[in-house]
Amino acid sequence: SGGLSLTCIGWIKTVWEFCKEDSNRVIFSLKVGLAVLLVSFLILFQAPYQVFGTSIIWSILTVAIMFEYTVGATFNRGFNRALGSLLAGILAVSVAQLAIFAGHVAEPIIIGFSIFLIGALTSFLKQWPSLVPYEYGFRVILFTFCMIVVSGYRKGNPVRTAIDRLYAIAIGGFVAVLVNVLVCPSWAGERLHKELVKNFDAVADSLEECVRKYLTDDGSEQTEFSKTVMDEFPDEPAYKGCKATLNSSAKIDSLAISAKWEPPHGRFRHFFYPWSEYVKVASVLRFCAFEVMALHGVLHSEIQAPYNLKTAFQSEIQEASSQAAELVRSLGKDIMNMKRNLRTSLLKRVHSTTERLQRAIDMHSYLLTSGHDFANDNKSNSAKLLSKQVSHENSPDLVFDQGSGAGDGNGSQEMPSNQTPAETPDQNGTPATAARVAVESYHEAMKKQQRRLYSWPSREVDDQFEEGSSGVDFLPRMKALESTASLSLATFTSLLIEFVARLDHLVEAVDELAKMANFKYGDS
Amino acid sequence: SGGLSLTCIGWIKTVWEFCKEDSNRVIFSLKVGLAVLLVSFLILFQAPYQVFGTSIIWSILTVAIMFEYTVGATFNRGFNRALGSLLAGILAVSVAQLAIFAGHVAEPIIIGFSIFLIGALTSFLKQWPSLVPYEYGFRVILFTFCMIVVSGYRKGNPVRTAIDRLYAIAIGGFVAVLVNVLVCPSWAGERLHKELVKNFDAVADSLEECVRKYLTDDGSEQTEFSKTVMDEFPDEPAYKGCKATLNSSAKIDSLAISAKWEPPHGRFRHFFYPWSEYVKVASVLRFCAFEVMALHGVLHSEIQAPYNLKTAFQSEIQEASSQAAELVRSLGKDIMNMKRNLRTSLLKRVHSTTERLQRAIDMHSYLLTSGHDFANDNKSNSAKLLSKQVSHENSPDLVFDQGSGAGDGNGSQEMPSNQTPAETPDQNGTPATAARVAVESYHEAMKKQQRRLYSWPSREVDDQFEEGSSGVDFLPRMKALESTASLSLATFTSLLIEFVARLDHLVEAVDELAKMANFKYGDS
Repeated sequence: SGGLSLTCIGWIKTVWEFCKEDSNRVIFSLKVGLAVLLVSFLILFQAPYQVFGTSIIWSILTVAIMFEYTVGATFNRGFNRALGSLLAGILAVSVAQLAIFAGHVAEPIIIGFSIFLIGALTSFLKQWPSLVPYEYGFRVILFTFCMIVVSGYRKGNPVRTAIDRLYAIAIGGFVAVLVNVLVCPSWAGERLHKELVKNFDAVADSLEECVRKYLTDDGSEQTEFSKTVMDEFPDEPAYKGCKATLNSSAKIDSLAISAKWEPPHGRFRHFFYPWSEYVKVASVLRFCAFEVMALHGVLHSEIQAPYNLKTAFQSEIQEASSQAAELVRSLGKDIMNMKRNLRTSLLKRVHSTTERLQRAIDMHSYLLTSGHDFANDNKSNSAKLLSKQVSHENSPDLVFDQGSGAGDGNGSQEMPSNQTPAETPDQNGTPATAARVAVESYHEAMKKQQRRLYSWPSREVDDQFEEGSSGVDFLPRMKALESTASLSLATFTSLLIEFVARLDHLVEAVDELAKMANFKYGDS
Repeated sequence: SGGLSLTCIGWIKTVWEFCKEDSNRVIFSLKVGLAVLLVSFLILFQAPYQVFGTSIIWSILTVAIMFEYTVGATFNRGFNRALGSLLAGILAVSVAQLAIFAGHVAEPIIIGFSIFLIGALTSFLKQWPSLVPYEYGFRVILFTFCMIVVSGYRKGNPVRTAIDRLYAIAIGGFVAVLVNVLVCPSWAGERLHKELVKNFDAVADSLEECVRKYLTDDGSEQTEFSKTVMDEFPDEPAYKGCKATLNSSAKIDSLAISAKWEPPHGRFRHFFYPWSEYVKVASVLRFCAFEVMALHGVLHSEIQAPYNLKTAFQSEIQEASSQAAELVRSLGKDIMNMKRNLRTSLLKRVHSTTERLQRAIDMHSYLLTSGHDFANDNKSNSAKLLSKQVSHENSPDLVFDQGSGAGDGNGSQEMPSNQTPAETPDQNGTPATAARVAVESYHEAMKKQQRRLYSWPSREVDDQFEEGSSGVDFLPRMKALESTASLSLATFTSLLIEFVARLDHLVEAVDELAKMANFKYGDS
């Protein structure tokens, strides 16, 4: 029993954590309890029961069915129920009167036929694309119609039944709305607002995480794809967030639909607040997030650029991505604080950093296609190249800042850019030891790289290729793979640049939202 | 009134089209009509009404609420309703008996408190992650409990009320299930099966469309991003399909949940059919579709590789993508026909073609980084390069098939691969006219290219960069952009290669499904 009490304590702890995570859950539960309690008073106390009679029981049903999490959703559902009941009531009373006039024999036939017709018609209409959001309303029409017509047939007086039922539903709806709005209201607009801001942060986090992992991954601890569960990498919490952002479109759409039903409240004070702009901004943000997913694809691709090549462009990639992430985050913050900022300076900075990255890639593009040299037996060239590169590493400002000279006019220092690897003069005074270290680390990286390359295309299929081929073409094949491996860095940077290009549209969309929602100009 | 009748005819046409598009919609509507009609007979005819009494009205409500599109969903909802009503009935009877024993004064207090408690508890539980699918069941518990307790309090005999209600619900549920299963049943499993196959085709179509457009787009008719509606390109019908595939996860999940409720039927004859494998395959397929989205991103990127560069690799890209698309399509076809094929030969072909693409990129990688030469004043080199390239175009087998010699052992013919552009010998006997045409078309393409490049980074921000910088660094900047433009081709091919790499996992997932679902071995 000690074990039992332990599991019991663990269970209570889990529930407690669940409540603490979002206290609104508990509040919502208590609100529902309160609403049904209030309605049940109408029956439990003698006075109201004598006024309304047994049909008041429908108001309990209405509360239980209508009470939704947010105010907007409750209004929406209430509207569906009210309009549906009203239409059904009118239809039912008309049909019932017609049936009574038709006489005793025809009455059940007319009623049966009308039930069939309404059943088929409502079910057909609720599949019509523009009417799909009102699915619940059509269900209400159907069962309300059936109940009024049928009970009218058995008890007589369908008008009385219809009116009683509408009364009960109106009272139930009134109580549900009242409790929902007056007791700790949970506004769909507020949730939408927070959800959008959260998405901005998720995309920024995921971008930074991806780039950080790409730059630090030296290939030693590759998690094999087939061994991990699809799409899930335990050491990438932000990736999950980014994926959630991509899947959030349905959630955001439904929150926006609910938000449109809400009256002005809290921070959203003016009528016709542009909730649909939130949907647009979220869609542009997802458009950016697709690039982050593609970056993740490169990160987890089995073909990887050599670690040394990655480090050569580390500072530029790092800078561009962290500035892009900062821009995304500050856009999210602007929305959160409802401030309007054009963020021109940040955008400018991101663009200039990205341009520096482009230029660095351009100047050292021979590195990306020098797989030939790397694989040849004369390692002297590549060793020189590499030692050069390592010396850049140690003093990154020396070379790369020439590339970044967009604003400081040092174009005259520009390295001759049509230099090819074969022509690279061996003029830099790197100490011999440093060069040797570089060569050794290069060898090691290359060995690792080759081990990993072998795993693609997958072993099994690869063996089957081999059958007809002689050993002669083995070397060129390896070279092709190496070159592709180096181009994987080009892919990574291109995707990063494309991400930055899409930020323009994101800034524009956020500014459009800020304009339409009358955000105040601010500087934070 | 002529206009009115015209709009009326147009309207009827639209409805007709809607029905023809999926005749199941009409069948579903008629089925609902039939089900409610059958239930209403219980009340309209004298005999059953005398047996069951007025509470039979609840069976109409049950049919209207329970009747879902697919058999599985109806079972699922019916289960929720049945179990919910049963639990609520037991709870309500217990509480009511307790209240009666407690005496006249305490009775309403106990009932009120229990209503509050059940309201809060069910609302809390339905938010618990693992209980979210049973949301409807908790709603049923709440309102059934309230109705039995309250009407028991007013009419006495809560046990009788509870049993009557359960009867009525059982009858309604029985009719709903019977009609749903016996009259043109719409199986969730069948729909899931078709939906998955459709997704395979959508991804294949989208890949082919994207590559076709990429290769034929010479930059003359660039639809500007800001002018088109986000994410929508009217001339890309397949793109929409691919996006729909990415957004289909919720649909597939819910269909799989419904399918699990269905008994063996039609082609899915054995118990515990692995519906969850469908979800897994769909998830791997989405994983592949992400790469297609990234390819689309490159296609619509404002930085584009020169048209000539694209044509140089046209046949390889074309072949790799169409074979990849064929593989995806044939996997979809295997699932459709429930055949098990390993598709090794197709996978082998795709891999070998992709390898050829890699090798072509590798051998001509100088083209990707030769922006320097292209932009210099001495056009002679690039003209030579280009005329060479054009002659390759005319006889693609001559050069590229050397690269593809994986199986035919012609490694000795291999072009010296450490050749750099400066060293390219002018030995090929292209006619002078062809060369001139090539040079001219190159000039034109380059001009267009430059016009387009200027639009990125966006004009506005760009102007602000210019402020502090002298004219000196303009040229290198252009070069940097050109090089990035060429690398965009490398990005495109890398993404295509990554797509092919992911196909391994797709083939594996489909085979796992085929194994678990006992697909028969077949050769179509």
